[in-house]
Amino acid sequence: MDAAEFRRRGKEMVDYVADYLENIEKRQVYPDVEPGYLRSLIPEEAPEEAESYEDVVKDIERVIMPGVTHWHSPYFYAYFPTANSFPSLLADMLCGAIGCIGFSWAASPACTELETVMLDWLGKMLKLPADFLAGTEGRGGGVIQGTASEATLIALLAARSKIIKLIQADHPDRSETDIISKLVAYSSDQAHSSVERAGLIAGVKMKKIPTDNKFSVRGDALQKVLEEDRAAGLIPFFFCATLGTTPSCAFDCITELGPICNAVEIWMHIDAAYAGSAFICPEFRPLLNGIEFADSFNFNPHKWLLVNFDCSAMWVKKRSDIIGAFKIEPLYLKHDHQESGNHSHWQIPLGRRFRSLKMWFVFRMYGLKGLQAYIRKHVGLAKEFESLVRADQRFEISADVVLGLVCFRLKGSNELNETLLKRINNARNIHLVPCQLAGKFVLRFAVCARTTESRHIQEAWCHISHLASELLQELPH
Amino acid sequence: MDAAEFRRRGKEMVDYVADYLENIEKRQVYPDVEPGYLRSLIPEEAPEEAESYEDVVKDIERVIMPGVTHWHSPYFYAYFPTANSFPSLLADMLCGAIGCIGFSWAASPACTELETVMLDWLGKMLKLPADFLAGTEGRGGGVIQGTASEATLIALLAARSKIIKLIQADHPDRSETDIISKLVAYSSDQAHSSVERAGLIAGVKMKKIPTDNKFSVRGDALQKVLEEDRAAGLIPFFFCATLGTTPSCAFDCITELGPICNAVEIWMHIDAAYAGSAFICPEFRPLLNGIEFADSFNFNPHKWLLVNFDCSAMWVKKRSDIIGAFKIEPLYLKHDHQESGNHSHWQIPLGRRFRSLKMWFVFRMYGLKGLQAYIRKHVGLAKEFESLVRADQRFEISADVVLGLVCFRLKGSNELNETLLKRINNARNIHLVPCQLAGKFVLRFAVCARTTESRHIQEAWCHISHLASELLQELPH
Repeated sequence: MDAAEFRRRGKEMVDYVADYLENIEKRQVYPDVEPGYLRSLIPEEAPEEAESYEDVVKDIERVIMPGVTHWHSPYFYAYFPTANSFPSLLADMLCGAIGCIGFSWAASPACTELETVMLDWLGKMLKLPADFLAGTEGRGGGVIQGTASEATLIALLAARSKIIKLIQADHPDRSETDIISKLVAYSSDQAHSSVERAGLIAGVKMKKIPTDNKFSVRGDALQKVLEEDRAAGLIPFFFCATLGTTPSCAFDCITELGPICNAVEIWMHIDAAYAGSAFICPEFRPLLNGIEFADSFNFNPHKWLLVNFDCSAMWVKKRSDIIGAFKIEPLYLKHDHQESGNHSHWQIPLGRRFRSLKMWFVFRMYGLKGLQAYIRKHVGLAKEFESLVRADQRFEISADVVLGLVCFRLKGSNELNETLLKRINNARNIHLVPCQLAGKFVLRFAVCARTTESRHIQEAWCHISHLASELLQELPH
Repeated sequence: MDAAEFRRRGKEMVDYVADYLENIEKRQVYPDVEPGYLRSLIPEEAPEEAESYEDVVKDIERVIMPGVTHWHSPYFYAYFPTANSFPSLLADMLCGAIGCIGFSWAASPACTELETVMLDWLGKMLKLPADFLAGTEGRGGGVIQGTASEATLIALLAARSKIIKLIQADHPDRSETDIISKLVAYSSDQAHSSVERAGLIAGVKMKKIPTDNKFSVRGDALQKVLEEDRAAGLIPFFFCATLGTTPSCAFDCITELGPICNAVEIWMHIDAAYAGSAFICPEFRPLLNGIEFADSFNFNPHKWLLVNFDCSAMWVKKRSDIIGAFKIEPLYLKHDHQESGNHSHWQIPLGRRFRSLKMWFVFRMYGLKGLQAYIRKHVGLAKEFESLVRADQRFEISADVVLGLVCFRLKGSNELNETLLKRINNARNIHLVPCQLAGKFVLRFAVCARTTESRHIQEAWCHISHLASELLQELPH
C-alpha cells in the first residue's frame, strides 16, 4: 500500500470509525459468540501472497464485530469506563505516523518534553501540591504509564529500593534478600487485584488492611497492623491507598493514613485509577485531600478523562526515588543531554509511544470546563440511576454513590442477585458486572460511554426492573 | 467535536500523515532543539475554554515537529528499526475506535481470540516447534506484550515462580525469600539492559556470561559458570539467550546452550527482539535452530515486521507456567467462560488494546512473500553498506554482518571514532548511535526506515567518508 492508497483507505477508515461510533447503540452491546468462534472464520495460516484491502476490510464485520464487547455503547455499564473521544483518536493517528520510540530525550525530544509539560498541566488541573510538578526546577514530576498496575508496581519497586538502601546505609552487611524477607507492604482489602500482583512480582509480603463499613481504610486499622508487624520483626515500607475502589468506589481515609505513613517513613502511593479524573472538579477535589502526604500518585485519564487507552498518569515527589531504582544505561542509549529526562527509567518497558499528544489534543479541544462538564454529566447520570433504585422498595443501594458507580442489589439472597445478573447479561440489552461487598453479591452499574444520556439510564432501569419482576414472580411465596 | 467534524478532521489528518511520511526525507532527521525547548512554546496551564481544532493542528508544525527525531526517515540509522506501515496505521485507527480493554475473554472475545490466532500464524511463519502454538488443543501459545523488556521480565518471573514451587514441593519449610536469595539467572554479557533490569525487579542475582570473539555465548562458558555457582550453593534457574544482540546483532549458540539448560532444568528464554523478524525467511531460519530447547521465546514485530509499536510477540511451551505465576481473579473479572483465555494473566498490565488487528492487517496486506521481500531488502542494503566500508582501507568492520546492522569504525583510537560519530550526528544529515565491542568504541549503522533505498545508503556512506577524510586530515601525522 503506497501513500496514495493510504489517503483513500484512511479516509474510508475515518468514515467507518465515525459510522461505528455514531451508530454504536444499534449494535448488541455484548456478543453472542462462544469461545473459539473466531478461529474457524479465518485461514489457519497467513497468506503467502498479499491480499487486497477490500478483502481485509470486509472481514471486519464478518470476523471481528460479531465478537466485540462494545465498551463505548451507551448500554455498556460494566467494569469502569475506558475513554474514547474524537480528539484523542486524531492525536493517536499522528502518534502512529511519527512512530518514535521515546525512551530517551534524544530519541525524540518532543516526546519526552510534551509529556513532562502535559503531566504538569494535568497536575495543575487536579491542584496537586507543587512538589509533584516538574516545572523547570522541581524535583518531582509526572510520567505516562501504560496502566495503573504498572504505576503501582513501579511505586512499590521504588519504595523497596529506597528502604533497602536506607537499611544498608546503617547495616552494610545486611543482604538485600534478607531485608526483602522482612519487608511488608499494605493495601486496602478492597484494593485492585493488581496491587496484590505487584507484591507477588516484587517478592514482598502484601497485607490487606480491613476496611470500615464504608469500605474505607481508616488510620486506626493501619496503625494496629503496623504495630503488630513491627512487634513481629517485620519492616513495613509501603502503603497503597485507593481512592475509588473497583468494587464500590470507596475512598481510603488518606488524611488519617498519610500522617501515619509519613511519621514512620512508609512510602504512601495513592491509586485513584478511576476516581482521579473527577478531582479536576472543585466539588470533588476534597476527596484528594491528604495527597500532600503521598510519595506517589496515579490515576487513569484513559478511564474517565476522554484520553484513549493507554494513558495512566503517575506523579512522584522525588523523581530520583524512581529513577534510582531502575537506571541502567548502556552506551547505545547515551546521548549529549543525559539529564534531560529519560522516561524509560520511570517504567517497566524501555520503549514508549508519543502518548502525550492525546492529552494535548483532548485538554485543548475540551478545555478544563468541557472536561469538568463531562465528569459532572456522568455523576449526574449515576445519581439519576441511584434515585430510580431507591424509589423501588425491592432494591437496596449497597455503597455510597459518590461518582459514576452505583452498587445495588435486590433485597434478598446472593443467589437471587446472581440470577438477576445472569438474566440481565443473557438478555444482552445492557452489560453489567458484579462485585462482592461484605459477603454480599452486588451488581455494579458504572456510567461508562461518552454518549450515555438520561434516556439510556431510564431504559436500563426499566429493563432491570422488568427482569426483576419476572424473577420475583417465579419465586414461591 | 462531533462525528461530522471528526469525518472532516480525520480526513485532513490522513492527508497530513501521508504528507509527513511521503516527504519525511526533506525533514532534518535529528532535531536542533536544546533541552527544555518545548515548555516555552506553549502555555503553562491547560486552557479553561475549548480551543478550535485549527489552533491545535497548527501547533504540530510549530511545537512538535521541531523536536521530533524522525525514526522513519531514510536518513535514520540509529538504534534498531521501529516499524511503520500504512496497513498497520489503518488497523490502529480501528483499534482506537473499538477501544475495548481486552483483559479477559468476556471483555471482548474478538480481542483475545484474534490475538491467539495471529500468534499462531506468526509462529507458523517462523516455523516454531508445534509446542509453542495454541491451536485448539495445545498447551503452549503466544501473546502480545508491549515490549521485549516485559517479555523477559514475565519469563523470569514465571521461571522464579516455577522453581520456588518445585523446591518447596520437596522442602515445604523453605521460605520463598530464602529460596530467592539463592537463585541466580544468566544472560550474555551482550544482552540488552532490560535483562539486567528484569533481575533487579525480580530481586534475583543476574550474572553475565562472557561471550566468545563473535560476541556469542557458547555452551562451555555457561557450563563453567553453572558449575561454579552450584558449588557455591546457588540455584541457577533462568538463562536468557539473545539472538541478535543490540550492540552487534550477535547470536548466542542456543544449540549448545539449550541442551545444557534442559539437562539441569533451567528455564531458557530467547530474546530475539530485533532479529526474530528475519526468521520468516528460510535462509535466516537456521539462526533459530535450538528453539526446540527453549521454554519461552520473544521477538518484536514492532521492530522489523511492519507492525507499529507496541507489538512484542511472546510464546511459551506451557501456558500454565506463565498463568500460574500471576493469576489473581476478583469477582468483577470473572465471567462464564473463564477458561477461554485471559491474556492479562500473561502480562504485567491488566488492560490491553486490540493490538492483534495490526498483525492481521499487515500479514494479509503484505503476505508472507511481501514480508520476506522486505527483510531481504534491508539485509541487502546492510550488505551494500558493509561492502562500501570494506572497500575503504581506513575503516574496519567490527562484527559479522548477518542481518540489517553494520558495526564499523575507523582503524584507530576510540577518541577518533567518538569524534567521527559526534561530527556525523552534529551535521544532522544522518543519525547513528554507537556501541562498545571488546573495549572498542564502534559506530552502529542499522538499516531502519521502510523507505530506505540504495541511494540513501550510498549517500550516507559518501557523507561518512567525507567527514572521516576531514577528520583524518586534521590529525597530525
